[in-house]
Amino acid sequence: MLSEFDIIRTCFDQPGLTAEKNDVVRQGIGDDCALLSIPQGQDLAFSMDTLVENIHFPASAPAELIASRSLAVNLSDLAATGAAPLVFTLGLTIPEADENWLSAFASGLRSAASDFNCYLIGGDMSRGPLTVSIQVQGLVARGKAILRNGANPGDKIYVTETLGAAGLALQMFKGKIAGLAEEEKEALQTAFYQPVPRIKAAIALSDYVSAGIDISDGLLADLGHICTQSQCAAIINLADVPLAPLVEKFLGRQQGRIHALSAGDDYELIFSVPQDKEEALLRAAQSLPERLICIGEMTRLKDNENAVVCLDETGNKVKIENSGYTHFKERG
Amino acid sequence: MLSEFDIIRTCFDQPGLTAEKNDVVRQGIGDDCALLSIPQGQDLAFSMDTLVENIHFPASAPAELIASRSLAVNLSDLAATGAAPLVFTLGLTIPEADENWLSAFASGLRSAASDFNCYLIGGDMSRGPLTVSIQVQGLVARGKAILRNGANPGDKIYVTETLGAAGLALQMFKGKIAGLAEEEKEALQTAFYQPVPRIKAAIALSDYVSAGIDISDGLLADLGHICTQSQCAAIINLADVPLAPLVEKFLGRQQGRIHALSAGDDYELIFSVPQDKEEALLRAAQSLPERLICIGEMTRLKDNENAVVCLDETGNKVKIENSGYTHFKERG
Repeated sequence: MLSEFDIIRTCFDQPGLTAEKNDVVRQGIGDDCALLSIPQGQDLAFSMDTLVENIHFPASAPAELIASRSLAVNLSDLAATGAAPLVFTLGLTIPEADENWLSAFASGLRSAASDFNCYLIGGDMSRGPLTVSIQVQGLVARGKAILRNGANPGDKIYVTETLGAAGLALQMFKGKIAGLAEEEKEALQTAFYQPVPRIKAAIALSDYVSAGIDISDGLLADLGHICTQSQCAAIINLADVPLAPLVEKFLGRQQGRIHALSAGDDYELIFSVPQDKEEALLRAAQSLPERLICIGEMTRLKDNENAVVCLDETGNKVKIENSGYTHFKERG
Repeated sequence: MLSEFDIIRTCFDQPGLTAEKNDVVRQGIGDDCALLSIPQGQDLAFSMDTLVENIHFPASAPAELIASRSLAVNLSDLAATGAAPLVFTLGLTIPEADENWLSAFASGLRSAASDFNCYLIGGDMSRGPLTVSIQVQGLVARGKAILRNGANPGDKIYVTETLGAAGLALQMFKGKIAGLAEEEKEALQTAFYQPVPRIKAAIALSDYVSAGIDISDGLLADLGHICTQSQCAAIINLADVPLAPLVEKFLGRQQGRIHALSAGDDYELIFSVPQDKEEALLRAAQSLPERLICIGEMTRLKDNENAVVCLDETGNKVKIENSGYTHFKERG
């Protein structure tokens, strides 16, 4: 049977997946610690996310897709900070050393690693229930990181691309969506397992942004974090929330918007932009493949009111019940 | 019920446990990424270890002890590299949000964090089978890291302190050791749950050391990693292997030595020292609380021979069957 040392050597320590030594990567896989020389004037940004079977993905999911999703959701945290990906560590817990599964997992990881220039530099392998812990490390020019606490009343609120497809995929996995064509199933599966971390967009726009976060738990919940840390409130114009086409098709516009506000897993970015930087932001955005959509505005925090207020087309407040995913309550 | 955000705020985001902002820690808990400004001339050393219930510790273990062991075994990797601890991230997966358990876990973590000057800077919390992933980050002067690949034939092999107590604790947990007094039970429990990462020793001795590793999987297995990466062999004089007193008492000297060579979990250091630096090493060691014991010598690698050879008092080779812990074979 393969030992963890064999597994690391045969499946993981391979070109295109592991970090090569260079001026920054001083020591990679195979020692007690990895070593990085951070270039002068750069800060190290890092974030750890753990994905657990049957919580973050169905246990039956293809290993390649578990791997690509695990790396992508971590890279999305670097994007939210405006950092360029560098290397990642992997803590992989697996019930048994199944070579086919492991080589499919490594292959999914290699493909995501090359796509986003973020290579494996170390980690740990254990026996146990399937759990994938990844920590991504990235670089950001000192003082240039996008944080959650910089928004001010009057700043415009933007999101990248469209929302709700990954959440719809979760409903599909549960058999709750009928009548999907084969290519629609595939599109939803891709939205869930291969979200695109908006790294280039974040780096291109970071000079014009006052605060930002990636939408992992749901737009309302994640915008709520910006509000809390920036001591602001926010108004969202429901009609402007960009829906993934399949969300509009299968849930309708009304229900789709509510879904898009509370569903997580899309890993689009939401950020605030001071009005005097909006023009420059939109100019910079022209060179990006991602669309940017203005969906509202940061406002002053008032007592006795939710930080995030949603308005319908006529300006009336709409109450959204399920405001996002938390781990220790049941998903709605 | 507590959400993960409540848990982080009430249990984990507290003085003495979380990293405070300073010239190095630019952003701690509460954003998408943590941010570090690495001082000039220093490299960042980091290592991730995952601990899974019923694999790395009994599920019934007290939460404080699970926490202290989880941090200590990670810090031991920094020690093996000669790096000074800085901050750690925590990926905690728990089956339910039990406030008592969580506050005990946080308390054990705080105590280990203060003992070793390594503070919490971020992480992730999920629902699932109890799993603790920690990544430690530390600093080491550029070019001064202790690696596994620097040993040469003729270098002396040293270990810190005594071996086998943590392995004996594992046998105690399984009810295999009879006649232990209460204070002996406690001593073994401490050896297993609160191993002392040999950080100060490693930093004090790093100038005199050619290669090093911490003993997590067993002396023979871990010394084997030094041999492989340094393309050397090693001779161990069995009579010189320092046994924990309780190991000698309960297993006898003969059996105790075999146990001490293959049992993991002690987290002592083993390192190679060029002979012309031995005197300086021993002088530097005088100011340390840890004893250093010379147990053998690095040699040239010969074909058709195990890299690590054990000799008894009369110079005869002794074959040790169980050479260390691997995850995907049963523990002997």
